[in-house]
Amino acid sequence: MLDTYSGATRVYFIIGDPIAQAKAPRYFTQALRANGVDAVVVPAHVGSADLAAFFATATAMRNCDGVVVTVPHKFDALAYCEGATPRARSIGGVNVMRRTPTGGWWGDQVDGEGYLAGLRAKGCDPAGRKVLLVGAGGAGSAIARSLADAGVAWLALHDADPARRDELLAKLADSAVARPAGSADPTGFDIVINATPLGMGPDDALPLPEARLAPGQFVGEVVAQPEVTALIAAARARGCRTMTGMDMFNGVLDRMVDFYAPRS
Amino acid sequence: MLDTYSGATRVYFIIGDPIAQAKAPRYFTQALRANGVDAVVVPAHVGSADLAAFFATATAMRNCDGVVVTVPHKFDALAYCEGATPRARSIGGVNVMRRTPTGGWWGDQVDGEGYLAGLRAKGCDPAGRKVLLVGAGGAGSAIARSLADAGVAWLALHDADPARRDELLAKLADSAVARPAGSADPTGFDIVINATPLGMGPDDALPLPEARLAPGQFVGEVVAQPEVTALIAAARARGCRTMTGMDMFNGVLDRMVDFYAPRS
Repeated sequence: MLDTYSGATRVYFIIGDPIAQAKAPRYFTQALRANGVDAVVVPAHVGSADLAAFFATATAMRNCDGVVVTVPHKFDALAYCEGATPRARSIGGVNVMRRTPTGGWWGDQVDGEGYLAGLRAKGCDPAGRKVLLVGAGGAGSAIARSLADAGVAWLALHDADPARRDELLAKLADSAVARPAGSADPTGFDIVINATPLGMGPDDALPLPEARLAPGQFVGEVVAQPEVTALIAAARARGCRTMTGMDMFNGVLDRMVDFYAPRS
Repeated sequence: MLDTYSGATRVYFIIGDPIAQAKAPRYFTQALRANGVDAVVVPAHVGSADLAAFFATATAMRNCDGVVVTVPHKFDALAYCEGATPRARSIGGVNVMRRTPTGGWWGDQVDGEGYLAGLRAKGCDPAGRKVLLVGAGGAGSAIARSLADAGVAWLALHDADPARRDELLAKLADSAVARPAGSADPTGFDIVINATPLGMGPDDALPLPEARLAPGQFVGEVVAQPEVTALIAAARARGCRTMTGMDMFNGVLDRMVDFYAPRS
């Protein structure tokens, strides 16, 4: 990369708290370069209190073409967008922002479409299936939106915080399939997805009662680090098919490249 | 570089207006990595009006360990330092800033020492010599400070803006060798240095009357892009020894590494 890296290289930030675990600096930089963009994706470890200062600078930095948004800023970042796609507005969050012609930001949320791509790459088409989604945060909201739009039979939502679950249900009010789940019990679902950060830490509890997983169920994860989380390991041990956070990451990465550097 | 680049990579900015010409993103990144620092030096194109916003963010970004400062921000950046070296304070400017233990910034100005290293690498010891320095900006001020401290016989200063020249002379009031030059005429000097940006643009005027250069004089440059400026080409054609802006850059780069990643 340093062969072409220079003062003229275009800058993209990925902002989060924490940020050290983020894979985008390496892989999204590679993907942009593979698509002919002389760019570097720069990790920015910024807390919520400093988000306004961060966006003041990113906007003022004339060589900054994009901001990728990760935990915990996906909802708050929408306020810094001049406009955003309908799917981003419907869930009130963005994970990618690119420049508008006037120097502001246009946002989208591609986590959901990236998740669907990852599911399909693993041979799992959610249309007509009963889905349990655990976690109604930034990624969970985007995945819920995409699943609802992809024709699932049921989309049962669980969150440790019922108010947050109900907020997401309200955002999905246009969909007939979304409903609250009373618990994270996977019994009876075709597809079970963890969209909480549980699994990132070595001492984390599992996000759902894994002993109730059954062969034939499909278990999806959003946590990409470690690549095989305790949930994925338990699901595989019980004969479930699985999709890891890296499978999601690869699907999201493709859509990020399309957003920033559309291929003809 | 992408083999080790990740969300845990430490960030250094180089801030300037313009910034596309800057060589630090590539070469300072290489130098830090060669010294065992997993870092990326990120170009930040920020105008003077946005300097406060930039420093608010750089300070808040917990993975940002340094800011390198280039034209036109070297003087203004001092205000964002908690403290700075005596040489930086004496000329009122910094070009490198690293974290203090409390999360603020400690500044230094290594352009002058880097310039001296470049001169010496070219076999030119300024001690006892008569020097004409053209340009009293950020780099010129640092070079003047170091030349005055290196025991030159005379240090004649010229700037198209006499007030700026006199400001620099006032900062060098502790030195007996600094004096105003009535013009940029190089006649009679042993060493002649361009410290203005003239030479960066293809249509720039030369910073001094090159027809008056004489064999045996030593001509130094700060402009590194193009590597052979019109001044350097004219000096070589007249039999002068020369030092390019890249020679300065290499000297400064060594001192920047020492500042950020001291070698034992």
